[in-house]
Amino acid sequence: MKIAILLYPGFTALDAIGPYETLGRLPGAEPYFVAERPGPVRNDSGHTALVASAALEDLTDPDVVVVPGGPPANLPLEPGPVTEWLRATDPGTTWTTSVCTGSLILAAAGLLEGRRATSHWLYLERLAEYGAEPAGERVVTDGKYVTAAGVSAGIDMGLALAGRIAGDRVAQSVQLLIEYDPRPPYDAGSPRTAPADLVAEWRSVRGV
Amino acid sequence: MKIAILLYPGFTALDAIGPYETLGRLPGAEPYFVAERPGPVRNDSGHTALVASAALEDLTDPDVVVVPGGPPANLPLEPGPVTEWLRATDPGTTWTTSVCTGSLILAAAGLLEGRRATSHWLYLERLAEYGAEPAGERVVTDGKYVTAAGVSAGIDMGLALAGRIAGDRVAQSVQLLIEYDPRPPYDAGSPRTAPADLVAEWRSVRGV
Repeated sequence: MKIAILLYPGFTALDAIGPYETLGRLPGAEPYFVAERPGPVRNDSGHTALVASAALEDLTDPDVVVVPGGPPANLPLEPGPVTEWLRATDPGTTWTTSVCTGSLILAAAGLLEGRRATSHWLYLERLAEYGAEPAGERVVTDGKYVTAAGVSAGIDMGLALAGRIAGDRVAQSVQLLIEYDPRPPYDAGSPRTAPADLVAEWRSVRGV
Repeated sequence: MKIAILLYPGFTALDAIGPYETLGRLPGAEPYFVAERPGPVRNDSGHTALVASAALEDLTDPDVVVVPGGPPANLPLEPGPVTEWLRATDPGTTWTTSVCTGSLILAAAGLLEGRRATSHWLYLERLAEYGAEPAGERVVTDGKYVTAAGVSAGIDMGLALAGRIAGDRVAQSVQLLIEYDPRPPYDAGSPRTAPADLVAEWRSVRGV
C-alpha cells in the first residue's frame, strides 16, 4: 500500500507527521513523502524542513494520498504541479485524505465538489468557495474522501482510517504503540469548548 | 526563549514534532532543531528526515531542551557528543524535557538520578537502570525535568509546559490553533486500557 504524503513549502509539520505515524505503521505500508522535487521542504515557520524522498512525477500510483495544511497563503491552490498531480492520481486511489487546510487544496483541485468536508475551524467556510460542503466535525468521510480538522486531527483521522484499512485490532496496536491516550491539560481545543473571547480574538487576528 | 529540539539518527518524528508544534508557538519562542551536524537527520523508519538548523556545539545556551525518543537500539545512550551536550547545557536550562524513550537518553546522561520520570510504556522500567524512578504517568514533572510517555504524549507535555511558561490563556490559544480536541476512535492508547492480549503480544514481540 503506497501512501503518498504531500509536502510543499510552508506546510505544517504536525499535519503531515500525524497521519504518517499512524497510517505509516500499518503492515505493508510504504509511506513516501513527495514534493515537486525530492529533498528538504521547509515547514510553515521555516524552523525545519522535512525531506521528500520522491518527486510527484515519480509516484503516479499511490493507494492513499495525504494532503497536509498550512497557513492559507502557503497553500498551492492555483493550477500547477500539485493540483495537476492530485487530479491525475485521484482516480487510482483507495483513499484521498487531508488534514487542516489541506482540504482547501483538495477542493481547489476540484476533488471535493458536492462533498462534505472539514478543515481548520478558522478556514472551514472557505471550502464552500470550491463547491464543497463545510462540516465542522473532527473527521469527515464522504466516499473515499476523508478530511480532518486542524493540525492535530490528523492523528485521529489516521487511526480511524487505519481501522478501515487494516481492521480494529491493528489500529488499536498502532494507538498503543504511539501511546495515544490524550490528556490535554485544558479543554480549549475546539471553538466550541475554548473561551469565547479567545475564539473571537483569533478570528479577528486572522481576519475571518 | 531558545528551545533546542535534539535530533539523532533513528529518532521518532512525532516525538519531536509534538513539542515543537506546542512550545514552538509560544510568543518569543526560538525553536532550533539541533544535531551533531546541521542538515537532514533520518527518522526511525528512514522514510523521511528532519533538517537540523544547528550543530550541538553552536547552541550552548538553550532555555528549554527537548529530547525525543526512538526505538531503543537507536538511542545515543553511550558517552558521546549527545550525552556530553546534554550534561553541558543542562545547568543553564529552565526546563529539560523528553518524550517517549528520550527519557532514557536523559537518564543515561546522568540527569534523572533519583528523579521520578516516565517513558514509553514498553521501556519504562529501564529508567531504573540509570537511577531514575519509573512513574507510569503521561507527563511527569520533577523539578525542572519534565518527561512524557510514548510518542503522542509530547503534545500533552508541550501544552502543560506552555501553561507553566506563558500562562493558561496562551497555552489555550496554542491548543485552539492546533485544534487539539482529541477524539481517538479506540480506547487502546495505554497498557491500562488496551486489550490485555494486545499488550502481552507487544511485550513479547519487543522482548520486554
